[in-house]
Amino acid sequence: MYALEVRDHIMIAHSLPGEAFGPAQKMHGATFVVDAAFYAETLGPNDIVLDIGLAMDGLKRILAELNYQNLDGLAAFKTQRSTTEVLCKYIFDKLAEEIASGRLGEDARAVSKIRVLLNESHVARAWYEAAI
Amino acid sequence: MYALEVRDHIMIAHSLPGEAFGPAQKMHGATFVVDAAFYAETLGPNDIVLDIGLAMDGLKRILAELNYQNLDGLAAFKTQRSTTEVLCKYIFDKLAEEIASGRLGEDARAVSKIRVLLNESHVARAWYEAAI
Amino acid sequence: MYALEVRDHIMIAHSLPGEAFGPAQKMHGATFVVDAAFYAETLGPNDIVLDIGLAMDGLKRILAELNYQNLDGLAAFKTQRSTTEVLCKYIFDKLAEEIASGRLGEDARAVSKIRVLLNESHVARAWYEAAI
Amino acid sequence: MYALEVRDHIMIAHSLPGEAFGPAQKMHGATFVVDAAFYAETLGPNDIVLDIGLAMDGLKRILAELNYQNLDGLAAFKTQRSTTEVLCKYIFDKLAEEIASGRLGEDARAVSKIRVLLNESHVARAWYEAAI
Amino acid sequence: MYALEVRDHIMIAHSLPGEAFGPAQKMHGATFVVDAAFYAETLGPNDIVLDIGLAMDGLKRILAELNYQNLDGLAAFKTQRSTTEVLCKYIFDKLAEEIASGRLGEDARAVSKIRVLLNESHVARAWYEAAI
Amino acid sequence: MYALEVRDHIMIAHSLPGEAFGPAQKMHGATFVVDAAFYAETLGPNDIVLDIGLAMDGLKRILAELNYQNLDGLAAFKTQRSTTEVLCKYIFDKLAEEIASGRLGEDARAVSKIRVLLNESHVARAWYEAAI
Repeated sequence: MYALEVRDHIMIAHSLPGEAFGPAQKMHGATFVVDAAFYAETLGPNDIVLDIGLAMDGLKRILAELNYQNLDGLAAFKTQRSTTEVLCKYIFDKLAEEIASGRLGEDARAVSKIRVLLNESHVARAWYEAAI
Repeated sequence: MYALEVRDHIMIAHSLPGEAFGPAQKMHGATFVVDAAFYAETLGPNDIVLDIGLAMDGLKRILAELNYQNLDGLAAFKTQRSTTEVLCKYIFDKLAEEIASGRLGEDARAVSKIRVLLNESHVARAWYEAAI
Repeated sequence: MYALEVRDHIMIAHSLPGEAFGPAQKMHGATFVVDAAFYAETLGPNDIVLDIGLAMDGLKRILAELNYQNLDGLAAFKTQRSTTEVLCKYIFDKLAEEIASGRLGEDARAVSKIRVLLNESHVARAWYEAAI
Repeated sequence: MYALEVRDHIMIAHSLPGEAFGPAQKMHGATFVVDAAFYAETLGPNDIVLDIGLAMDGLKRILAELNYQNLDGLAAFKTQRSTTEVLCKYIFDKLAEEIASGRLGEDARAVSKIRVLLNESHVARAWYEAAI
Repeated sequence: MYALEVRDHIMIAHSLPGEAFGPAQKMHGATFVVDAAFYAETLGPNDIVLDIGLAMDGLKRILAELNYQNLDGLAAFKTQRSTTEVLCKYIFDKLAEEIASGRLGEDARAVSKIRVLLNESHVARAWYEAAI
Repeated sequence: MYALEVRDHIMIAHSLPGEAFGPAQKMHGATFVVDAAFYAETLGPNDIVLDIGLAMDGLKRILAELNYQNLDGLAAFKTQRSTTEVLCKYIFDKLAEEIASGRLGEDARAVSKIRVLLNESHVARAWYEAAI
């Protein structure tokens, strides 16, 4: 299995309702350094998993919807908290759509799995990975 | 698959008997920066894999038994060397016990896999991962 | 010149008023990974700049006032924006007070300079350093 | 599953022919920081996946063929571009040969999977992983 | 003294003539992860050293001249080798011009020192720092 | 001012006598990832601060005396504890001797300052820097 991974980041505010979240119930925030990995069993005629420029652009497009936002105000996080885990899945779904739409290029048609990893500090991170 | 990973560290002395270990047969030591990852197929009602505070506390509890120790004197390493690989498995087993005991909280009941990774320098690391 | 540096982090929300800040004028947030360095010309009888445990405790005490907060609501940031640069200086001043109070121990009396560095993402950081 | 990973690096020139590569069609170059991971289901009598010294030597032996080279001139990259993905596979194959030859030692006979990961910058990396 | 530092990178080919350079005399290449730090004694009315967006744009503008190039063909490196040290100074000079021209904004007028640091691998880096 | 920095590491055991050191009074150990920086005001005819290969060899030669040792048994640490700060100064002095002896090459004659930084974990490091 081959993989290509690119990195970008967002800076957001949010709150996490529920006793389980202790002080994180209050409005606070995070820098999430986002690693998006694309997996493919084989390489196409360009000898790559997908075009790295298109991968970075696609990730940036998705993150632009989140960057400098208070996530509490976004529709996507009305029915679920914007935990790091949920954000991973949210970005994963959007990346899968990018590939399906063709916006990540023809090579990306061979991508069979995605992993989205969010680094939230030097001591904690979360990720979501699945076949697409 | 979702995952949450937390980081802590220990500073230990040990020796590794056997010709294969060359200069490491002598008493020396290491800082191990420990990454413990918890995997779950789905998120529970709190939208998390497990409580990050409980995860960090649990890891610290396990590492407290090792930190600032000469591992050669510990019962756990009488029948096997305290190689990086063996230490990964040792911490893995202890984390699985933490989850089974309920000390990592109710959310953690859904954890189906653990990975314990020990960074021993900027050029070497080892890990153990398995279903629990 | 000797130096000892310790690391901790905070996760905060804030907004940065003024046209110059573009999208950062809105409520957003950041993880700041904080590096606090203590400098001394000579080492005392303990062969250290200062006690690393006391240094970490002192830094944590200061960061506890900021962690999981919306900085817009804190008195310290009513007359100046909570930019990364301003936060560095704020933590610097608090660390200088910690040393002056003796809470960082006797060894710390020899500290003659402090640097506070805030990593705000994998591509940006700021710091403040000065003699005390 | 156990794993041991070691790190080294190469500094190479190359060009990537084909419109898809935009400015990378020209002669340019890269530092690749190479992480080679060796996986084994069980540990042998030495309580290790393989000898870390032999692993580092084996990786260095392979990288020596590439380091300080213009990859465009090497036979291995006449029929395929020297993309990061292709380089991962190239090094993977060579590491598998090292194990098969016995040069990585007897413990390494238990290695059942290899992953070769090339970090090409602070924002991009690629890898190849497979059973051997 | 305050400082703000931003990061970007370039991927270049070059050769380093002269016996002292051993295998680096041949055409090879590097990824340079570039850290540009701007220092100021005081903060202006915006509570920042300079606008981080303008700093990143300015650095990118300078790096665009080098990125994906064979440095051996550039006029700037005809009279001196493109060693890491020389590249640091080259980028330093260009950043000083950016500030003098006003392209990094009014806040940047207070910048009194710059440091340009090039990370060339996980085990080596070089920098140039001076007052401007 | 120019600087060149190289990285290597050691894995040692030691104990730190004295109440101030709490649990570190016991035999324990550390991996120290060592960064040695060499500063020079100007570059010589080779356009470098010093030969990077000679710098790495010199650092390795010094670290070889410490690596895989129990520092409690070494003469150098009979009259002072082997704290991180003291180790920085020890390596600094040895590097200054390397330069004075000519073993780091002719270019290194221009080196006017050295900094030795020891990373002891992901949250702590110390350094010593001075003119030579």
